[in-house]
Amino acid sequence: MVEEKMELNHFMNYLGFKITKIEAGNIEGSLKIEPQHRQQIGFIHGGVIATLADLVAGFAAYTLVGNKQTVVTAELKISYLNPGVGDTAFCRGFVLKAGQKLIFSEAEIFANNDNKEVLIAKASGTFAVIDVPA
Amino acid sequence: MVEEKMELNHFMNYLGFKITKIEAGNIEGSLKIEPQHRQQIGFIHGGVIATLADLVAGFAAYTLVGNKQTVVTAELKISYLNPGVGDTAFCRGFVLKAGQKLIFSEAEIFANNDNKEVLIAKASGTFAVIDVPA
Amino acid sequence: MVEEKMELNHFMNYLGFKITKIEAGNIEGSLKIEPQHRQQIGFIHGGVIATLADLVAGFAAYTLVGNKQTVVTAELKISYLNPGVGDTAFCRGFVLKAGQKLIFSEAEIFANNDNKEVLIAKASGTFAVIDVPA
Amino acid sequence: MVEEKMELNHFMNYLGFKITKIEAGNIEGSLKIEPQHRQQIGFIHGGVIATLADLVAGFAAYTLVGNKQTVVTAELKISYLNPGVGDTAFCRGFVLKAGQKLIFSEAEIFANNDNKEVLIAKASGTFAVIDVPA
Repeated sequence: MVEEKMELNHFMNYLGFKITKIEAGNIEGSLKIEPQHRQQIGFIHGGVIATLADLVAGFAAYTLVGNKQTVVTAELKISYLNPGVGDTAFCRGFVLKAGQKLIFSEAEIFANNDNKEVLIAKASGTFAVIDVPA
Repeated sequence: MVEEKMELNHFMNYLGFKITKIEAGNIEGSLKIEPQHRQQIGFIHGGVIATLADLVAGFAAYTLVGNKQTVVTAELKISYLNPGVGDTAFCRGFVLKAGQKLIFSEAEIFANNDNKEVLIAKASGTFAVIDVPA
Repeated sequence: MVEEKMELNHFMNYLGFKITKIEAGNIEGSLKIEPQHRQQIGFIHGGVIATLADLVAGFAAYTLVGNKQTVVTAELKISYLNPGVGDTAFCRGFVLKAGQKLIFSEAEIFANNDNKEVLIAKASGTFAVIDVPA
Repeated sequence: MVEEKMELNHFMNYLGFKITKIEAGNIEGSLKIEPQHRQQIGFIHGGVIATLADLVAGFAAYTLVGNKQTVVTAELKISYLNPGVGDTAFCRGFVLKAGQKLIFSEAEIFANNDNKEVLIAKASGTFAVIDVPA
């Protein structure tokens, strides 16, 4: 179900993001950083990082809802801990609390540079559970 | 200065974002929504909205720093108020408080659909003032 | 209804917070700053400011729900723009978007010092609409 | 140093908060919940929880700054995961990244009810490092 949803997500495909692990309440994925993902001084753009955070925190929430339900992001906060230096971004989303109406989850984004992994951002989001529009 | 910085921002150009107004502490811009900006049910992707928020809130902060300074996003929170339905996103960034070290600014993102403008997201961010890396 | 709810809020009464205006989607109130509201260098404590933000943003949301409904805070973010110097805090909560399940509102907290009013904090929150527990 | 700072924090003492563990980058503490800490339906007030989050996340940051430096909260976001039911709140603050100018830390707040510990809130904050005012 998550895989199907992924294939239909145009912006995710456009960026080139790949999901590498799907478990109940946990998602992992990665993005090969290309020139278009960078800002003016060569770091990974904050908007790319926010997008990755939204994707993995949201998909982690989505793994826990019912058959005819989906989630929408109510709000997301991203803290930019370290400069986004590197050629690959690796990210992880996980659920803190899954309620009937709201799911709270977090995301960690790492950049991989010369085989060192650095936590570049941490995010927390609130996701509303809704019925799939017919 | 802001215009020069804009031209060097690869991810912004990749998305197709255009800045339409630059004043001290205020930035406006717009994005024509293309298929790649949407998620699986056709709404503007949350990551696109977060990127717009980061761009205009950050550029608004940037208009207020010194010649050899720039800003980096310390954190950004986005509230998704309404579904991103529409063909154009219009956005506005403005500074709440500009300190020597930190600048606080906000962003509003509107979607334009059939000549009606709807506030689809509101964001607040903290930007650190840094010296331009040599 | 809001007034009744207020009287039952122990922590609010303990702090000494007074609501001064109640309109649909808008709340105003004030707090006389006493020594116990301050931190170690004499500024209004961040926790007091967060409490004021939660109260006015939450009550503003509460003015828009049904008879047998109430709101609970899902999340709240506070930006501390200026030091909390002053003898009175004045605050304002207002709704950005009221949905069936979620209400988004904001709060502004001002400190009043020598007849000058300074915006010391800005907050945004997400409030879940729930049925009043029986 | 942290202990000295604590004793001078009026609002913390007023609430009755006790710090139980101080390590570099880590703080733990607890609060016995009294009637004045509750809101109208008997749960721990969101403002009390925000205050605890600010205290432990901020003190955790403070353990890592220089002799003549202190920290001020730039912003704080709190997610309210579960109702604050219980007689004791226990909380933990820890640093994610300590920079020269900004320290990012998080806080977890648990409520203790009938010997069960429930995570009631999770917070993330940005703290600015400043020189101690003379």
